[in-house]
Parts: sequence; structure tokens; C-alpha cells
Amino acid sequence: MARFDLPESELRTFSPDVRVEDDFDEFWTRTLAESRAMRGDGPTITKIESALRGVDIYDLTFPGFAGDPISGWYIRPAGETADLPVIVEYVGYGGGRGLPHERLAWPTAGYAYVVMDTRGQGATWGGGGVTADPHGAGPSFPGVMTRGIEAPETYYYRRLITDAVLCVDAVRELPGIDTSRIAITGISQGGGITLAVSGLRDDLAAAMIDVPFLCHFERAVGMSDRDPYGEVNAYLRIHRGQRETVFRTLSYVDGVNFASRATAPALFSTGLQDATCPPSTVFAAFNRYGGSKDIDVYEFNDHEGGAESRWPDLAAYAARTLA
Amino acid sequence: MARFDLPESELRTFSPDVRVEDDFDEFWTRTLAESRAMRGDGPTITKIESALRGVDIYDLTFPGFAGDPISGWYIRPAGETADLPVIVEYVGYGGGRGLPHERLAWPTAGYAYVVMDTRGQGATWGGGGVTADPHGAGPSFPGVMTRGIEAPETYYYRRLITDAVLCVDAVRELPGIDTSRIAITGISQGGGITLAVSGLRDDLAAAMIDVPFLCHFERAVGMSDRDPYGEVNAYLRIHRGQRETVFRTLSYVDGVNFASRATAPALFSTGLQDATCPPSTVFAAFNRYGGSKDIDVYEFNDHEGGAESRWPDLAAYAARTLA
Amino acid sequence: MARFDLPESELRTFSPDVRVEDDFDEFWTRTLAESRAMRGDGPTITKIESALRGVDIYDLTFPGFAGDPISGWYIRPAGETADLPVIVEYVGYGGGRGLPHERLAWPTAGYAYVVMDTRGQGATWGGGGVTADPHGAGPSFPGVMTRGIEAPETYYYRRLITDAVLCVDAVRELPGIDTSRIAITGISQGGGITLAVSGLRDDLAAAMIDVPFLCHFERAVGMSDRDPYGEVNAYLRIHRGQRETVFRTLSYVDGVNFASRATAPALFSTGLQDATCPPSTVFAAFNRYGGSKDIDVYEFNDHEGGAESRWPDLAAYAARTLA
Amino acid sequence: MARFDLPESELRTFSPDVRVEDDFDEFWTRTLAESRAMRGDGPTITKIESALRGVDIYDLTFPGFAGDPISGWYIRPAGETADLPVIVEYVGYGGGRGLPHERLAWPTAGYAYVVMDTRGQGATWGGGGVTADPHGAGPSFPGVMTRGIEAPETYYYRRLITDAVLCVDAVRELPGIDTSRIAITGISQGGGITLAVSGLRDDLAAAMIDVPFLCHFERAVGMSDRDPYGEVNAYLRIHRGQRETVFRTLSYVDGVNFASRATAPALFSTGLQDATCPPSTVFAAFNRYGGSKDIDVYEFNDHEGGAESRWPDLAAYAARTLA
Amino acid sequence: MARFDLPESELRTFSPDVRVEDDFDEFWTRTLAESRAMRGDGPTITKIESALRGVDIYDLTFPGFAGDPISGWYIRPAGETADLPVIVEYVGYGGGRGLPHERLAWPTAGYAYVVMDTRGQGATWGGGGVTADPHGAGPSFPGVMTRGIEAPETYYYRRLITDAVLCVDAVRELPGIDTSRIAITGISQGGGITLAVSGLRDDLAAAMIDVPFLCHFERAVGMSDRDPYGEVNAYLRIHRGQRETVFRTLSYVDGVNFASRATAPALFSTGLQDATCPPSTVFAAFNRYGGSKDIDVYEFNDHEGGAESRWPDLAAYAARTLA
Amino acid sequence: MARFDLPESELRTFSPDVRVEDDFDEFWTRTLAESRAMRGDGPTITKIESALRGVDIYDLTFPGFAGDPISGWYIRPAGETADLPVIVEYVGYGGGRGLPHERLAWPTAGYAYVVMDTRGQGATWGGGGVTADPHGAGPSFPGVMTRGIEAPETYYYRRLITDAVLCVDAVRELPGIDTSRIAITGISQGGGITLAVSGLRDDLAAAMIDVPFLCHFERAVGMSDRDPYGEVNAYLRIHRGQRETVFRTLSYVDGVNFASRATAPALFSTGLQDATCPPSTVFAAFNRYGGSKDIDVYEFNDHEGGAESRWPDLAAYAARTLA
Repeated sequence: MARFDLPESELRTFSPDVRVEDDFDEFWTRTLAESRAMRGDGPTITKIESALRGVDIYDLTFPGFAGDPISGWYIRPAGETADLPVIVEYVGYGGGRGLPHERLAWPTAGYAYVVMDTRGQGATWGGGGVTADPHGAGPSFPGVMTRGIEAPETYYYRRLITDAVLCVDAVRELPGIDTSRIAITGISQGGGITLAVSGLRDDLAAAMIDVPFLCHFERAVGMSDRDPYGEVNAYLRIHRGQRETVFRTLSYVDGVNFASRATAPALFSTGLQDATCPPSTVFAAFNRYGGSKDIDVYEFNDHEGGAESRWPDLAAYAARTLA
Repeated sequence: MARFDLPESELRTFSPDVRVEDDFDEFWTRTLAESRAMRGDGPTITKIESALRGVDIYDLTFPGFAGDPISGWYIRPAGETADLPVIVEYVGYGGGRGLPHERLAWPTAGYAYVVMDTRGQGATWGGGGVTADPHGAGPSFPGVMTRGIEAPETYYYRRLITDAVLCVDAVRELPGIDTSRIAITGISQGGGITLAVSGLRDDLAAAMIDVPFLCHFERAVGMSDRDPYGEVNAYLRIHRGQRETVFRTLSYVDGVNFASRATAPALFSTGLQDATCPPSTVFAAFNRYGGSKDIDVYEFNDHEGGAESRWPDLAAYAARTLA
Repeated sequence: MARFDLPESELRTFSPDVRVEDDFDEFWTRTLAESRAMRGDGPTITKIESALRGVDIYDLTFPGFAGDPISGWYIRPAGETADLPVIVEYVGYGGGRGLPHERLAWPTAGYAYVVMDTRGQGATWGGGGVTADPHGAGPSFPGVMTRGIEAPETYYYRRLITDAVLCVDAVRELPGIDTSRIAITGISQGGGITLAVSGLRDDLAAAMIDVPFLCHFERAVGMSDRDPYGEVNAYLRIHRGQRETVFRTLSYVDGVNFASRATAPALFSTGLQDATCPPSTVFAAFNRYGGSKDIDVYEFNDHEGGAESRWPDLAAYAARTLA
Repeated sequence: MARFDLPESELRTFSPDVRVEDDFDEFWTRTLAESRAMRGDGPTITKIESALRGVDIYDLTFPGFAGDPISGWYIRPAGETADLPVIVEYVGYGGGRGLPHERLAWPTAGYAYVVMDTRGQGATWGGGGVTADPHGAGPSFPGVMTRGIEAPETYYYRRLITDAVLCVDAVRELPGIDTSRIAITGISQGGGITLAVSGLRDDLAAAMIDVPFLCHFERAVGMSDRDPYGEVNAYLRIHRGQRETVFRTLSYVDGVNFASRATAPALFSTGLQDATCPPSTVFAAFNRYGGSKDIDVYEFNDHEGGAESRWPDLAAYAARTLA
Repeated sequence: MARFDLPESELRTFSPDVRVEDDFDEFWTRTLAESRAMRGDGPTITKIESALRGVDIYDLTFPGFAGDPISGWYIRPAGETADLPVIVEYVGYGGGRGLPHERLAWPTAGYAYVVMDTRGQGATWGGGGVTADPHGAGPSFPGVMTRGIEAPETYYYRRLITDAVLCVDAVRELPGIDTSRIAITGISQGGGITLAVSGLRDDLAAAMIDVPFLCHFERAVGMSDRDPYGEVNAYLRIHRGQRETVFRTLSYVDGVNFASRATAPALFSTGLQDATCPPSTVFAAFNRYGGSKDIDVYEFNDHEGGAESRWPDLAAYAARTLA
Repeated sequence: MARFDLPESELRTFSPDVRVEDDFDEFWTRTLAESRAMRGDGPTITKIESALRGVDIYDLTFPGFAGDPISGWYIRPAGETADLPVIVEYVGYGGGRGLPHERLAWPTAGYAYVVMDTRGQGATWGGGGVTADPHGAGPSFPGVMTRGIEAPETYYYRRLITDAVLCVDAVRELPGIDTSRIAITGISQGGGITLAVSGLRDDLAAAMIDVPFLCHFERAVGMSDRDPYGEVNAYLRIHRGQRETVFRTLSYVDGVNFASRATAPALFSTGLQDATCPPSTVFAAFNRYGGSKDIDVYEFNDHEGGAESRWPDLAAYAARTLA
């Protein structure tokens, strides 16, 4: 059936207990501190030539987890020198920063805009990516979901979330940024990352979290037949004895745990027919979210959620929130 | 197999005879004349409010086939008053003009830009459309491919191609257009329409034709298992006796016949694994194309062809051709 | 799972509120009156040559919605001149009146028999159809489910249901009919149409409604992954803002609303594994049906329901009811 | 690709050598003689009650292979006492004789009509069957294709073809038959059986062979991914060493070998997109067929071939041939 | 969804009433007695040559149902002459005894080991089989699930279960067996057979029953979309009137009914995502099982259950139970 | 179609030119030398407890590429102290060394046996693996096929092939090995690795190469729709500009290039319906193979090739070759 999860009335109050380890906060405090200590030089930007004369485009590199170089694009209205409010975007599973012409809406709307590349991904769809993930892994199911899942310290998403938090560090150092008006946003994996950053920073003016992945793993794994949650299920089909280990690791990157620690105003969205990131997993995070919040519900949509229709709503929200 | 069509070396010289009726040119001359005679007032544009402050956006309506009102967007760099070279885009099967924020690359690159809505489509993907097709049809397979296929006069694509040709009439009347520098472009169905317009107008500065649909029907139908060519096959599975009627009708909208009549410089593209619009059907048109021409071949791509990577190449081509 | 809907015990009492507008009756009264006013000449029948010497076959044309010509077959036992009880059949989605040799059971059983062609369909399966739908539509998803769904007045099924009601008008005028013994029947879409006619006429002796489509749309859309309910879901995935408009339009053709207005004796059937027309949507109509009624439940069947085994049961029911 | 086999021009002359054992004729002579010797009483018919008053319906039982009782329906125009030309039909894979109301076209056209049930099948589609196959088998892949394939003597199709030949023996003994005008017909498996009977009898007035199965096994197995040819492939995937045994057995039931022995006038049909019974396997038999012959080619059809549109052509052929 | 059945907490107490006929015990007593009476000579073993020098391999034949010859392998540690505890294995649907090198774990662990071939199967996967099923059947759906399902006496599984019970008779007569330490085991169909034998013998030291098939048919049929339960559903889709007959027959081979009669210690396993043999059907048997028992639950596995990881657990259980 | 590649007669002589770089030999000489230089201590083996008393099982660790620790199992007939001929096995894509009871055939046949774990894989099927791949990668498509594909030096298969070569170094140091009788073997990826090791060592007594992967990439990529060749195609769909880079890298691990350098006697196998590793890619390597050679062709098998039936043939070959 297209509809498969709880009815909307139950979703609105769905607030299950989600596993969290005692050292969750310490884990992230330590992780961020260690990586910040390993940064060498700050972010660098290089202006690139482009036919897109209405915007200025910079190739961005900044130090991420363990100081690893992470790429992105920094795009601004052409010739604009004022400090602008900034939108920082994280991208979906398998994608990368893509090409600048794919990412013109926010700068055309007058914002500074940064999109972060995703380490080791960027080869499955869209314009791709360029950022390596220079860390190995134990036996893994194809995809990144189970790379290093043996422990929180080695887990892929520890690295990616750290990149995302440090991306905001870097953004604050860029020229032309109004650091009091930083908003973060993302779809699917990008939404999950946005949620994580919301829980790990207190300097954000807004978070826009669309159809987020990485929420309530114990429900999602075994509920969704699709990747990427399905990658975890597939891994556990072979590594039968590692249930405890796997869900312990995942608890450190669970969006529900980040949500309860977040304070920035947030706008969520979910599709009631979303079989990739089921709506109950989204509401599990939304209902625990610590800041002021709202959620748009797409009754007839699968994981595409608001898709092309979504940006005008985000733009209106950003206009209100960053004004 | 991913590869299924002729090898590239054979594609380069593949130039089959394609059916064309004696009255092909007369048919189109008459069709266009009749519809032009039925136009009431010219195109109208209405500026819309938008968060996209870097561009000026107008809701466009112009008279298409039989004077039917056809919608589009007209988008320009904000505040720019000079006469600009213009890019006119036709969209793919099932889509519509979508939303303005999806279509920022060309105006950001300094062009005037018009995207034409597709009558009766616009409900299958993307931001959708708003234009009706106020004409009925005989028994049809779902989709528009067999609507009115009983005769060239009643065929859906007679109407859509006429809309597309008259869209350029309308564009010439818009304010701020350099009418000596009109380029047309489109992907898939949009590519097929671009090819048709190329064969029916002599005032175009360039045509950019990506992975075009609507070419060499007698090869494509029965070669591609997928819609929309598959819709014709499905129709003929039931209406077994109508082979002659169907392919006669289709010959009036076959891109190969338009190609041989075209004169504008053109840039094509095709994917060698394109099972929707097989590369041999694209080369059948390309090899007959009457103007100066080039083609980019994507060896490992299916119907997505160049996808997100394509626009920079188009922009470079437009810059050269419209300079 | 093969079983996916409510258990039979709950189906038996499943009687949800289904949306109905205040002007539902007025809408249909007006619609039928307007179309009856537009009829020109009455039905015409033309005897055709056929190898089927045991029956007399007539090509039927009658005025349907807006006076549009609608085709059908009128078939009788050969040489029989008595006024016979008549079976009027409506066909399933994508089909048409087909060929006479497909439709011999009822005339062989001694009935006059009329099968109505389906406007604009008749190209997807079976012997096909010949009747055009000379009305256009706004942006639509492939298929007829969303053609004109913007308003009840423009909706495709307003036209088709009107055709079906007027088909009985026409049947009453045919030679050799016992107008006190008119039964109507249909499978799937044909069952939905039968239900609609049952709610809009009071001169019927029986209605045989198999695995009906067009019932309880707010449950069916989003429950069935398959077309044709899925077409509405697909449309709403793009036209996200039109939920209210769409379900308002659909309420005017919802079989549940016709059921509560019906008075003729009726025999329903449903398959408990029917994922095209889920059994709960059938019972929603059955449980509200206003006339005397019975339902046959096929526990292990999907949308095929009784399939080939069904006709003997219908024949027995007709024999009892029309005797 | 929808088209996958040889182009029609090559099909027309495709006449490959097909394996045949020296004792092919002796095998069949002996098989038929033995089974005829084992018959007890002749065919029996029992008139059944039915709503179908335009026809007389008899439940037929006759002695088939090894005297096993085989069922069928014998249907005639009601009350007709003249000796009539007769159509004998064999049915497709997985089906049975079904229900009488499914089989009214031929008797309505004035013919006596017999449909033979298929031993052990009759549980996969349609109205089903009632005839057992009281013979066991060695290790087999699901379906009947590999039952007893270890040797021609034990092979399932030895039994079924014998049933089919003896069905005509039985038909000749039925009341009301003009034994000079016996035609046989069938679709798919029924077509293959028709071809076999054509090669094993010399008293037939016509054979109508639609999209026949059981032809040119060494090409068909490994060309068609679908059942039932696929069952043989599946069996050989496990029983790797039995290639010689399997194809030797199959050669005794290969339609190509029957075709070259046939003498009755025949009408074939094939679909050029038939991936179940590829057109080249049909033409391999057709081109070798020994009697006068014609073939109808459905260019856009898969295994459905002419489907509902086919019967009028068969009726015309029967009218010409049996006149 | 991957998870589709009851949650584990409910499975633990799921104990539905399952149909059982009054003569269930008598049926089996009579069946076994009749077949035992028809045995001719006892089991025969023939030592075969093999590269597998660490084991002695014998080709086993023993009299099964109605005295039919049934094959198997008898494998022992090479040169070992002591009476050994023995493991008897039954195999999964479509398979056969396979090849000896596939079956080395138990003899390498020091056990005598017998694997029973499966009559009439052995052509779908793995190393195949050699044992015929010399009994015919009525109309059947492909596969063995509906062969002879018209009555318990003719049903395929009556024969197979009898083979399995008599296999233990035969094992008791083999040289080198410690008849006080006979364990039986199997996966899927093999597990269902193990369960049946457990209910029909009282001389077993242990039963190891993995992801068993053949349990709680009225729930399983219509819950699982997959074969082999799906074969019964498919049969009932055509033979609609035979629900009572079919489920009556199946009740005689339902593992739940055998479970309540069993006394040997048993170890079960099930996968919570097993859509072939749903966990609730396994627990329905487990919860009724009459002997001491335990069950291993694989939370993330489908029908593969413990797969390659399972044997060490079985070996440990066997070591404890047969010590 | 099941058959899709060249006919066997053409396969027998199919010997295309395959790209090879001038420094191919130097690349591998250097790679192996560098990794050998980085080894620390030699292989270690630890005897493990097991119910499998007929064999002695050791957990093996040896230094692989860059000295990374690689696991394996070393299994011998229990208590056997003689120097034995040894079989070294490499496993298929996604698998790992699994569990010892899966790997009993060779030791039961009297051989020493080593199975090498596969770095970073071992989570997709079977008993899994334990060996990490401690090296990162650039943007990659899920799976290992494109990890580090930017350059031969960083490519995943450089590491895995080096592991495999050094595994034989380690085997030579194990106790109880007759180093003059080392055979290597593998299926699919394991077959490709076996081929690579055959080309990089001159101390092998035999190579058994079943349905090998990693051969003739420029044909395989774009011919096979399936993973893992499909991963390369998928990568190139996004990274369109990297064709030259990718195929240059792949040429260093192409089995055709190793084949021409190999000298050990070899037995290959291939399935003519193998759509994962098409037979023409296997024959491209086989026909160039430098040692004495033979190939078994499975006409009706897909990638499973000989499957369970294969081992007896390998055992016979090993017996002849290692005698």
C-alpha cells in the first residue's frame, strides 16, 4: 500500500523512547574538539570562471573531520559586497556538491549560499562530488551506511556530521557573511545532517529539515525495505551477532537525539507515503525537537516530499526567520 | 544489455529512409497559417512577485494552435532593459513549465529566457503545468502519444508543435528581445519539439537538441520498450489494423523530416545506452540535419544523457553561436 | 501480503462516512437534463454481417453526454422478435465494446444484450473501442482519471456516467425490449458505472456489480498502489495543493453516494485480495446500498474476482430477478 | 527490446535443420496403436443443464493415452440435428476446458464444437479443468514441461498429444458430426498440439494454429526467458548432464517434425514481439509445413498475437475451408 | 515493509486454533501401516568412489510410501566402525539429496549422516535429486503443493511425509547406527517434514527444525505472496469452490497438528522478516510443540534465517542432546 | 533473452585486443615489492575449537598489501602431519572467508586448504568476513568497484590482488605444506583474483578459474547490466569525463592481461547465459591464457555456472594436476 505508516493523527503525538548512551554529549564534544584541533589553515575560496554572470562562484575548501579537506561551493549575488544572511546546504545520499548552475535559487534570492560536498559519496546521482573519505572500514555492505559501524569512533557518519558542523565554522570565516543570520538546510541525508548540526551548534538562526534520514534507527531498520536504512538491515542479515553493537553506534548519530538538544527555529517536512524515510521516524524527531518548530506534511508523496514545490516555502520561511 | 543499439561507428553514418508524405510541407504551412489566423490578442505578460530578486519573472500567455491560450514563464536578469539574446525552452514528456526557481541558469547567464508550458501534460513530474488541451480524442492509450493519431489533422503533436512555433512568434513580440539572437532548446520531448521548430522556422540563431524524442518512428516503435514510444506500440497491439494510419500520421511529426528542412546551427546530444530514445533514432535525425551541426555522445548514459553536466556545454555553445 | 485489507468480519460492517456535497443530487439532475436536451435523433442501430448466425448483431449509436455519439453493440438471439429482458453492460478501464463474438453469453441465454463503448478509452486491452471523447482537459496524468478533475462539471466521469444513464434511455427505445426487465451489469470500472446508474435511475430491475471501481476515493487513493486509483495519487504528487478540489470532484462520482440512492435489487462481488479495488471500498458501497442486495466474496482472488466462474452466478441471479 | 528476433524478411525463409530421430514415425505409430488398443468403451456424452439455451452442451469423456479418461465439452447449436462441420480445440498451457459460456463463438457460428481438457493442467488460469494425469514422473521442475523428460516414452507430451489425436477419434464417433469436415485449432500450447495432430492424422479438413508452442526446441530453449520453454532451461541448469537426453526426448514432440508430415490446409499466426513462443520458432514450423498454408503476422504483438481480433479471421478461414 | 508479521512479544504467545480432523491420528496410523506392509526388501546401501577420502559415502535406497524406492546418501567418518549417533536430514522445496561434497559438516563432526532425497522434486536448485514420484495427480498448479490436494489420501505430502518416517525405519536398519541417538533436522520444507516426523515417531533423540514450512495453512495461505504457500492460493484462485476440500486436506499435514503430538526435544528457528514461512506460522507450531523446546529468532533475516551461521548452533545442540 | 552473447563457435576464437599500459609489469613488480617490504612478522595461525573433529582448523592472519593484516582459514585433515598439496581459494564479490564448516570439501579430500578473506567485503552474503580495508577512497559508487579508481595506485583491486599474491607467500611459510603442489582457485571475483595471481606468480601447480570476473572491462562495462561491472557503468554515468582514467586504471587489473602472462596449467569454466560475467569476457582471457588450459562450458547456466556440480570436476582436475 502507498500508505503504510501510522495515520497522521497518531504521528502528531508519536514520541517513542530512542536509545541514547550516557556519553552522547561527551562523545560529540570530544569529537568536535579533536577535529578542530587538527585543522591546519582555515577555509580557502577560489573564484571560478563561469557563464553565470549574475552570481560570484567560489570553490571552497575547509578542514573537516580530522582536518580532512572538504569541498563545497560558495555562491553569492554578483558584485554584492554586503554581509549577507547565509544558507548552508547538505546534500542527499550518494550525491555531492554538484555543479554551480544547479544551485542558483538561494543566491538569486539574495542570500550567500554554501553547499557542502559529501566525503566519499558523489558518484550515484546528479552533478557528483570531489571530496574523498580517506578512512578505511571493516567489512561493509555496499554504500556508506555500515562503514566503520563497529564503533561510534570509526563510524562514517561521525566523520560526515563533524564535517557539517565544521562547515559552519568555516562559513563564519568567509568574507561577506552576516554571522548572526546563518541558516542550514538539507533534504533526506542532508536533512538528517541538518538535524545533527542543529543539535551540535547554538549559533544558528534557522534549520530547514526536509524528509530527514538518520532518525529512530530501531524503527526505521526493518520498516523500510529501501536503501539506505536497508543497508543496515542487509548488514545485520550477515553479521547476525552485532545487533547491540550496530544500534549502539547508530544511537550516536540518531536525529532524535540531536533534535532534543536543538534550539534553533526549525521547519520540517515529511511525506506520508515516504517508504525511504518513513514519516513516523521523522515525527519521532520532530516531536522531540527542542526549538520552535513547524512541519509540512505531504499526504500523497513518497520520499520526494515537496520536491520542486518546496523551495518557495523554504524561501518564505527563511525570509521570516532571517529577517 | 546496457548497450543495445548500433555501435557508434555505424551510428555516425546511419541514414535510413524515413517516410514522408508529399504534402508534408503544405500540411505545416497550412496548419501554421490557420492557427496564426485564429490568434486574438498577442502575448500577454504579467510580472509576478517572487523571492528571486535577481531576476524579473513574468507569467506569459500566448495564442497557440487554434488560438488556444498557452502559458509560459518569461524570466530576465533583474532590471535589465537592454534587448537580450533569448533562449526558448520546450520541456520533456509529462512535464510543464514548472516553477521559476527551477529555471534560473539561463537568466543568470544574462539571457532572456522563455519556457513554454506543454498543453495537457504537466501532471507527471516536476513543478507541473497549467495549460489545458481543449481538444478531445478518439480511443487512446494512456498518455498523449495516441491522442488523435487517426489523422495528422487531429493528432496531439500537430497542436503541440504549432504551439512551439507560435511561441517564437510570441517571443519576437516580447519587450527586451534581440530578435536576431533567438535560440531554442529542449530535452527529450523538448528536444523533439526543438527539432520540429528548427524545421519550421528560418529565423533561429541556434538549436540545442538533447536526447530528442519523436524521431524515426518506424524504428523506435518496437525497439524501445518504454513510454512514450511504447504507447504507440501498445495502441497498435489493440488497433492492429491501423499500422498504415498511425505511421502516416507520425510521419508528419517525425524529427527526421524536420531535420532535413532545418538551417539553424544545431548542437545535439545522445546517450549510447538510451533505451527511451535510442541513439540510432537520434542519429537518423542528426545525420540528415540541414544546418551546421555537432553532437555530443554520452557513452555510458541512458536517457539522462548529459543531465546536470549538460548545461555548461550548452552555455558555451550559446555563447559562441549567439555572440 | 496477499491479504492486506480489513478481515471479512469487519468488512461486513464497514460503513465509513463518505464526503458528499449538498448539491450532489441537483448536480446530477441538471447534468442529465442538459444532456437529454442536447440529444438530436434517437439511437440508431445497423445490422451487421457476421459469421455468428445464432445471433442478430446491431451496431448501436446513441446520444450521450452533450449529445456526443456513443457506440455499442446490440445483440439478440437470431430471429427472435419478442420483447426480451435486456442486459446492459459497461466495461472495465481501458477497454471498449470490443468485438461481438466476445459477448455471446447473455444473448445465448435468451436475453437482449447491449454493451456500451467507453468514450476515449478502448485502446488498452481486448477488442478495443471506437468512441471518441471530444472534450479536452487541463494538465492530466496519463489515463482518464484526472482528465478535467479540476471541477465536477469538467470531469471525465461526469461524461461517462451520463453516457451510461442515457444508454438506458436509448435501450428503452430499441425494438424488442421488455422495458420492465432492464438489468445493468459491469466489472471494475463497469461495476462502478453500474453502481452510478443504479443511483441515478429508478426503472431498473437488477444491478450486477462486480469488483467495482470508483468507490470511497479518500480511502482508495493512497491505499491502492495500482492504476487507476494510483493515477489520482500520482496527480496529487505533483498538484499538491489540489487535495480539496480533487476529492470534491471525486465525491460527485463516488459509488458510495450512488449506492445510498439506489433502489434496484443488486448483486455485488469482491475479492479479498483485490489490490486494485480494495474490498473495503467495495463494502463501503455495498453496506450503504439502498436496494435489496447480496455480495459474493472471493477469498483468494485479486481484482479478477470471480472471473470466468462469475457468469453462471450472474445468469442465475438474472433468471431469478428478471423472471 | 520489444523486437528481438529475426526481421520478417528473414523469418519468411528461416528453415533450420531440426533434430529428428530415425524412429520418430514408428514411435508415434506404436504409441497411438497401443493407446487405441487400451480404450474401453467409446466416448460418452452427458447433456448438462445450462442457462445457455441457444446451445446444447454435453459433458464429454473419451479414452485418451493408455485409455485414461479425458474430459471435454461438446457444444452445438440448440436443437440442431444435422451433421455439422466440427471445430476441435486444444487449450493453452496451464488451462483446461473451462466453462461452456467461455466457448460460444463456434457453436453460435453454426459449428459443432469440442474443446479438449488438458490432463493435469487446468489450475493456472481461466475456468480450469477436471482431467487428471494419473502418471508420475522423475525429478521435475514445476510445471509439466519436464515431467518424464528422461525418455520419449515417459514424457508428458507423449500423453497429451496422444489424447489430442484420440480426441478426433472420439469426435468422429459423436452424433451429429460431418466427419468430412473436421477442423482443429488451438492457441500457444493448443497451437502446438494442433500442429502435432496435423502431423499424425490424415482426415483433417483444416488446421488453425495460433502462436504455437512446442516448436524448434533447441532454438527456443535459451532464447525465451519465459515459461514454459524456460522450464526446460531451468531443468538443464540443474541437470547439466542431460542435454542430449532432454533434446532427444523433445525432438519427438517438436512441431517442426510434425509440420513436415502434415497435409491438411493450415492457417498459422505469430506475433513478431512474441517472447514466449518466438516468431522464428513458429516460422521454423510454418516454412516446413506440408499442406497448403498461410500465416498472419502481428507486428506489434507479443504472445497474445491476434487475441480477441483473431476469431473473425479464423471463422472466415473455416468458412472457406470447410465449405 | 521488511517487518510484516506480529511483533516478537505477541509471537511468543501466539497459539491459534488450527483445524484438525477427528481421524487425524487414525489417518496417519493407517498410512504408515499400509506403506510398511508394502515394503519389499529393506534398505540397500552401495559404497561409492569419491575424492572425499575423509568420509565413507553410500548410495542409499529404501522403501518409502507404497514401497516406492527412495534415494539418499549415507555418509560416515571414513573407516569408523563404531555405532554412531545419526543425523537424518530432509531438504527444502525443489531440492534433492544433491551431491555428497555438499553435506560434509555432520560426518566431519563425527556423526553418521543420512540425507533423504525428495520424490519428484530435485530439479529447481542445488545438486538436484534422482527420486521419482510415480503417482499422478488431478489438475494442479505448477509445483507439488497442489498435487492430489483433492483428498488427504492422494495428497503429495502424504507420500513425502511417509517417506520421511520410513527413512528413520531404514536408518535403524543401517550398519553402524546407535539407534538410541537419532536426530532429525531440516530447513524450510525440510523443517516442516522434521516436524511431521517428530509427531509421528517416538524414538527420536532430537529434532532441529529451521524456518519450517507446512504450518498453519489457513494463516499462511493468503499471508505469504511467495511460493510454495502461494501455490495453494493460486490454485484456489481458479478452483474457487474447493476451499473446504483444500484446507481439510492440508490439515492432515499441518505442522501445528504434528507439533502437539511430538515428544522429542526440539530446537526451532525463525526469521522475523521471513515472508516465505512467516514467523507467526512457525510460532503457531512452536508454541504447541509437545516436547522440551527452544527457538532462535533472527530479527533481521528473511527465509534464510540463520543460513551459514546456523550449523554451529545445531552442532552444539546436537552435542548436548545426543551426548 | 537467456542467450545474449556470441555463439560458442565464435567464443572459441574470440581474442580481442585489450588495453595494456607499457608499465603494467613494472607496476606489479613494484607493488608487490613494496608490500613485501612492509610486512612485519610472517603469517600467524591459531588453532580453533570446533565440533568439526575430522579437520584441524586454524585462524590465519598474514600481511597483505602494505602489510595490512588479512585473515583466512587454514584447514587440514585432522592429525595429518605430512606436507600436503594445498588449495588456496579466493572468494566472490561481497563475501568473506565465511565459517569453516562451509569449506570442508578440499580438506576432506586430503588437501591442505586456505581460504583468504576479502578486505572490506564480507557483509553481503554467506558467513561474512572479518578483514578491514584500512584505505579510504574518493567519490565512489556503492561497492568496491570504483573505490580509488582515479589511479592504479589507489585502486581497491591493487590492494586485493596484492593480498592474494602475498597469501601464497604466506601459505609457503605455513607448516605442513608441499610447496611444489600449490593450486589456486576461485569463483567469479575469486576467479578473477585467481587469474591475476596466475599472472603474477610462477610457482603454481594449477589454477582453477570459475566464471571469472575482472576480464575485458571495455566489453564487460556496458554489456552487463548487473553489478559489479554495472558499478563502473554507474560511476561513469556521473563522472562522464573520466572514461580514460577509469579504463586505464582497470587495465592494470584486467584478467586478460594476467592471462597472457600466466604459465600454470589452468581449468576455466563459463556459463553461456552468464549475464554477470559474460562468456565472451571469460573467453577473452581464456584464449590468451599462457599455460596449458581447458574450459568447461555450461550452456544453460547463468553466473552460477557449474555451481554445486562443479567441485567433483575440480577435484578430479586437482588430482590429475597435483599428483
